Order: sequence, then C-alpha cells, then structure tokens
Amino acid sequence: MGKVYLVGAGPGAADLITLRGAELLGRAEVVFHDALVQPELLALAREAKLVAVGKRCSRISTDQRFINRNLIDAARRHDVVVRLKGGDPMLFGRAYEEIAALEAAGVAYEIVPGVTSALAASAEVGISLTQRGLSRSVVFATPRIGEGEELSDWAPAVAAADTAVLYMALGRAAEIAGILELHGMAPTTPVVLVENASLPESRRFGSTLRGLKNGAAHSMTGPALMLLGEVFKQRAADLMEAELTPAQARYAVPMG
Amino acid sequence: MGKVYLVGAGPGAADLITLRGAELLGRAEVVFHDALVQPELLALAREAKLVAVGKRCSRISTDQRFINRNLIDAARRHDVVVRLKGGDPMLFGRAYEEIAALEAAGVAYEIVPGVTSALAASAEVGISLTQRGLSRSVVFATPRIGEGEELSDWAPAVAAADTAVLYMALGRAAEIAGILELHGMAPTTPVVLVENASLPESRRFGSTLRGLKNGAAHSMTGPALMLLGEVFKQRAADLMEAELTPAQARYAVPMG
Repeated sequence: MGKVYLVGAGPGAADLITLRGAELLGRAEVVFHDALVQPELLALAREAKLVAVGKRCSRISTDQRFINRNLIDAARRHDVVVRLKGGDPMLFGRAYEEIAALEAAGVAYEIVPGVTSALAASAEVGISLTQRGLSRSVVFATPRIGEGEELSDWAPAVAAADTAVLYMALGRAAEIAGILELHGMAPTTPVVLVENASLPESRRFGSTLRGLKNGAAHSMTGPALMLLGEVFKQRAADLMEAELTPAQARYAVPMG
Repeated sequence: MGKVYLVGAGPGAADLITLRGAELLGRAEVVFHDALVQPELLALAREAKLVAVGKRCSRISTDQRFINRNLIDAARRHDVVVRLKGGDPMLFGRAYEEIAALEAAGVAYEIVPGVTSALAASAEVGISLTQRGLSRSVVFATPRIGEGEELSDWAPAVAAADTAVLYMALGRAAEIAGILELHGMAPTTPVVLVENASLPESRRFGSTLRGLKNGAAHSMTGPALMLLGEVFKQRAADLMEAELTPAQARYAVPMG
C-alpha cells in the first residue's frame, strides 16, 4: 500500500512550489492534478503518469467521488501518489473530502502546504496585507457557491476584517460589491484585482467597491483575486491612473 | 546597484521554502534573516554572509530603521541581497516598512511569497480551513501589539469569520479568549493550538475557547498558532482525549 501526498502547487509560477512538493513530484508514480496547474510544474513529475482532474473557476469539474476512488486505487498500486492542487490544499481546495475518503479506506496520506494565491497577489502588487496601525486582520473568503454547496454568510467577516481577499469572486463582482455595501463597507473602499497572479500574463487593475458595482471587473476572464481594504488605497489609485483605457475610464471612481 | 529580494522562508521546515526562494538563497551574497529561521534553511545560502536581524515572538528586536539602512547599504555593494522572513513577507512580516525604505532609496526589490504558518498548521492537524457548508471564510489576525503599534480592533473580524487563525497570540491566550467571548464567540468554540508548526518538535493541543480562558495554553512556550472554529471540532476533541496529562485535565471542557 502506497501513500497519497496532497501537495499545494502554489499560485501558478512553477518555481513557487515548495522544495518538498517538487521533490515529491520527482518521485511520484502518478500525479492527479487540477486542470489549471501549469505545464512547467507538471514537468517536474518526470516519471509519473499525469491525470488531469477537476477545474478551478469553472462550473465543470471531475466528480469528487471519482477523484477519491482514483486516489485510493492508485495508492493500492503505487508507492508515491501525488494529488497536486492549485494554491494550498487546505484553503478552498476541498482537500477535506479527499482526506475523509483516504481515512475511510485506510490509505496513508500527508499534506504538503503551498503558497496561496492571495500571498502571490500581495507580493506582485507590492502591498502587505497587514500593516501597523492599519491592518491587523486579513480574511480570505469565497462568495462562490459550488455545485451542492449551501449558502453560508461570508459577507460580515469580509466587512469586519481590515483587509480581505476574495477567491473565485470575479464572475459575480458587481453583485458582491453590492452585498458588501449592504454590510456597511464604504463605496470608496480601495480594490485591486489581480488576474493570473505570479504568471507572465498577470494583470492588475485598481478600483473601488463602487467601481466594481459599476462593472470594473468586466474585462477580466482568467482566475482572479479581489483584494479589498485601506492598505491598497495608494496602489489602487496608481493602477487606475496608469492603466485606464478609454473603455475603462467610465468605471473610475475617485478615492474617498 | 543590486537588488533586494524579500523572501518568505515558510513556516519553519527547510524544505517548505519555495524553489525560487531556495534558488535566490543559493545566489545571495548577503542574507539578512529573522532570528527564528532554521539553520538547515540558512545552509542553502552557501556563498552568503549571514546577518541575523529581528526576532519574532519576542519583545526585543533589531530596530527596523537599522534593518532598512543595512538593506540599502548592502544593495549598493552586492548584486543579490536576500531579506529572509519567517512565513510570508506580506502577512505579519512588516515587509511594508522595508519596501517603503527601499523605494525611497531607489533600490530595486522583488517579493517572493512563502507558505504562511497557518497553512502548515492546518496541514499538520489535517483539517481544512475551509469546508463546504461549514467554512467559507478564514481570518488571519494578530492581537499582539508591538512596540509603537496602535490598537486596532481585531476581535470583530475573528468573531465574524467561520474559521480563524491567530498569530502571536499565545502569550495572552486567556485574555484573548475573554475578548472573543465578549464579541459573541461561543465558549464551546473548538480550538487547536499548534506550536512549532512543520518542525520535528511540533506539538498540538485541543481545547475550547472556555478552556483557553481557563489557562489551556499555559504549557506552550514556542511560536504557536491558535486555530478556532467549528471545522476543528472533532480534531480538538481527539487531541484532548489523546494528550491530556493530569495537569492539563483540569482545563478540559466538554465540547458543546
């Protein structure tokens, strides 16, 4: 009986996986990976059979029970099985469902953490999520409701934290901004949107909560994060200044 | 003029740094590192002069202006200068002060994200911070007030989020538990304490908010995280069951 390693792939760039994650990929006999994982990263799995499962930020995904069954089967036939998940496995990664299945089947497993994309976005934008006197709490949340998921109330935590990063929020950005305003977040709250964090094709936009409500995220199509809070005030303004095209200009809202 | 790389060292274990971070350490001519960074990690900086600056989780630390000045001086004399910070630079790492100083001096810099210790603690405990129907928001916060820092109100965000991880909270655990109860967090809220996450000497304890208030964290001395929320219910109970010594037994509170 082999072992299943749930490995965080990191935010996207192949060299932002951990040494431990890379070493396991090099030893893996089979790798089950999210569809969004970069080819350069999969190239580290020199000897492994690669199996794409699941898609982040898409409505279509491989059935979770199918993934679970495959992991268990693979552990019965191989020594080193890697389940490579975008970002960190324990944050919006549904690792708990795979862990529960592995435990129920008596399969040994280990979790290897990864760099979550919020931290890559923060690094890229050059703004700390926490700052003395300005931000001592950061909330990571998702307003996305997946298949079979129930609504839980994510907005109060986002409104209460000094800084917030929303995952998988772009598709409903205008609606989300409206909900956050209803929860007391100021329309002038600075927002930075980061698309494809850590990758060469990364893009960044500055806006405000009001700008989002008016459609500022309309041009973004890739996996993206929404960063909100006073710490982003100057950077959001700089980005608005630098990146406004005529089409975007109508979404610009003066910072409060 | 060289470049300064603000690199996340990750949670502690030397192989939980990123490939990019390790590669930069290998090329660095000088490395300014937090005092808590492990020797095995510093060994990756084969050619570099090592300079210990700052201490996490201690009242004594190298003056931030001294660090800033050193980074700028080093960039004038070396091509590759690494500032190695525990966890991720942008989360409770005070990177913004160093970034501001480097920008003011016209020194080029780059931020390399790292695995923050909350994710290593979650991996070690085997419990996802987010879970379908149970947790869609996670807040990372610190109630610690450093020298010269002002109090900002961290408790409402912690009470509002589905899951919370408190950094640098152990020294005032009982007081913090009392504050969170005042903000409406149930005394039966499950708590897992993780000391030295990702290192061989790591220890884990299960408790509840009430248990913390009654002193459950009294035996912890190393850098530790406080994980709170319903997702930890079963694990906190398991840990309480497995790890109670007679001295700790009096702090055990039945799960609600």
